[in-house]
Amino acid sequence: MAEANGKTVDLKTNFLQIYSRLKSDLLDDPAFSFTEDSRQWIDRMLDYNVPGGKLNRGISVVDSYEILKEGQLSDDEFFFAGVLGWCVEWLQAYFLVLDDIMDNSHTRRGQPCWFRLPKVGIIAANDGIILRNHIPRILNRHFRDKTYYVHLLDLFNEVEFQTTSGQMLDLITTHEGEKDLSKYKMPVYNRIVQYKTAYYSFYLPVACALLMAGETLDNYVDVKRVLVEMGTYFQVQDDYLDCFGDPEFIGKIGTDIEDFKCSWLVVKALEIADEDQLKILEENYGKSDPACVTKVESLYKDLNLQAIFSEYERTSYEQLISAIEAQPSKQVQEVLKSFLHKIYKRQK
Amino acid sequence: MAEANGKTVDLKTNFLQIYSRLKSDLLDDPAFSFTEDSRQWIDRMLDYNVPGGKLNRGISVVDSYEILKEGQLSDDEFFFAGVLGWCVEWLQAYFLVLDDIMDNSHTRRGQPCWFRLPKVGIIAANDGIILRNHIPRILNRHFRDKTYYVHLLDLFNEVEFQTTSGQMLDLITTHEGEKDLSKYKMPVYNRIVQYKTAYYSFYLPVACALLMAGETLDNYVDVKRVLVEMGTYFQVQDDYLDCFGDPEFIGKIGTDIEDFKCSWLVVKALEIADEDQLKILEENYGKSDPACVTKVESLYKDLNLQAIFSEYERTSYEQLISAIEAQPSKQVQEVLKSFLHKIYKRQK
Repeated sequence: MAEANGKTVDLKTNFLQIYSRLKSDLLDDPAFSFTEDSRQWIDRMLDYNVPGGKLNRGISVVDSYEILKEGQLSDDEFFFAGVLGWCVEWLQAYFLVLDDIMDNSHTRRGQPCWFRLPKVGIIAANDGIILRNHIPRILNRHFRDKTYYVHLLDLFNEVEFQTTSGQMLDLITTHEGEKDLSKYKMPVYNRIVQYKTAYYSFYLPVACALLMAGETLDNYVDVKRVLVEMGTYFQVQDDYLDCFGDPEFIGKIGTDIEDFKCSWLVVKALEIADEDQLKILEENYGKSDPACVTKVESLYKDLNLQAIFSEYERTSYEQLISAIEAQPSKQVQEVLKSFLHKIYKRQK
Repeated sequence: MAEANGKTVDLKTNFLQIYSRLKSDLLDDPAFSFTEDSRQWIDRMLDYNVPGGKLNRGISVVDSYEILKEGQLSDDEFFFAGVLGWCVEWLQAYFLVLDDIMDNSHTRRGQPCWFRLPKVGIIAANDGIILRNHIPRILNRHFRDKTYYVHLLDLFNEVEFQTTSGQMLDLITTHEGEKDLSKYKMPVYNRIVQYKTAYYSFYLPVACALLMAGETLDNYVDVKRVLVEMGTYFQVQDDYLDCFGDPEFIGKIGTDIEDFKCSWLVVKALEIADEDQLKILEENYGKSDPACVTKVESLYKDLNLQAIFSEYERTSYEQLISAIEAQPSKQVQEVLKSFLHKIYKRQK
């Protein structure tokens, strides 16, 4: 275990070293003639928004590629897989900076959202766009001579399109007009989660690794399906932990009830509630008054949502395992199982 | 002349037909499973933001390609050049939707800015991103089998990066902190204009046409330089017309003085003003009070900015013509001259 931890720490340290190199490349990009002020701005903006997360998505590109290659990676292989991992992290940073503006959020990763800094404000919208633009700059610099370069561009373009389409669905379903619980149905929930979260968080890292390993993505539509399922399961966990997780463990206090979020819990509650219980939801969901929040939480307990979630978790796991074992390639099976075991029954 | 006008009308009608086809492709994109609501949203958003401009940038791809091909285009050639023209228009729409949010603007092309519509609001930020994402969707659908497909992706990526970098420079120079005229110097002005406007408005359409004609862009760095110069000259005209143009003709009343814009006029005025005149600028520039605006306008007249602009226009024209005539290819010369003659001494 000590060794495993040691290995993980090394991996993260090495992965973070790649970030520094990519950042300094970007600050010297010949396609733009930086002023001292603008170079400093980007430097600060990157450090604030890119490397501060858990880095799971990025590191999973390296992990997946290592499994596909069946052995330790050379320094070069590690570097290239790491660069693609950072592209996924850059994409995530871009989505978060813009989502925080659109959701009018206050904090992110334990610090104020970027747009909340007094010197930044609405410039953050353009910074988000710049983060997005850095991805093709990075890909062009490091991958333009690879045979799969154009497929990488296509992949990132397609996944970004799906994510922003999912965000649109979320915005027009849950932000538009008055608060209306009647829109919160399981098919709507699933569609939002699939597009807004699952493609970029689960499919994209594995697809990057497959391209590096010389594979054609058209041959892996089943793998995509499994990863999108896994991404959905991951988001359901997220929603569950927001209410039932240990704040000490997950590092934040959930506010989905106050924020009128289209959470798996409220969608499931709406499915099974009787008329009196529906009334409780309608009167209390989406209010910041702690008494209202407590009433919703009690209702969730009365409806046995904890047991229903456990059952969902169990059947999801079984379905995923059997879909994974139906894959022809042992290496691909291993990639998918390693993903699943990172998230199954997670507490944070 | 009647024939020329007739030809222009036909061209615009045919160009607009391509828009309808691209829109319906996007509303049936298999990469996203649309709901009825989300399909309608995109339909309305596209019609509101994409086709309502002058379409100069888009049509210039077709014009340039026709000159390079030395003869009338086949239906197929017209279609493909038109699709690339629309990609430039989509890019423009994306920049405008987001710029209007960042600048807190009120109107655009004679109607309220998209984000000002009550049903839209901050969802407009995501809509801007979706417009941007449509470009690679369109390119992938129509160009993925062309040998120059990857170069098109690289080109759009590079130009978008330059434009958003120019926007950053503009935002941190002119929006950040207190109003401070000491930052408004000609090299700063030139750099903002070059990156924020010239690359995508002037270089990009010609570069698209060159790629379609089978050329390698690395061989056309001089052409890029000329077009970026022309784009700068175009923006100087824009700034001049904002104050000295005929509102009847240009279709809007300029507000650069009220808005504390980094306009060529104020930068030039700051260069040549004496101490008393500097004081007038410092006390009156960027104020919405009409008396202040009038004082700035009078100062511009006292400083003879109209004559200085005419001289700038004359020397720019001469320099551009001699740079154009230094180009080895006659067709390329013709493309560049056709661009220049569209804008030289324009009144709107």
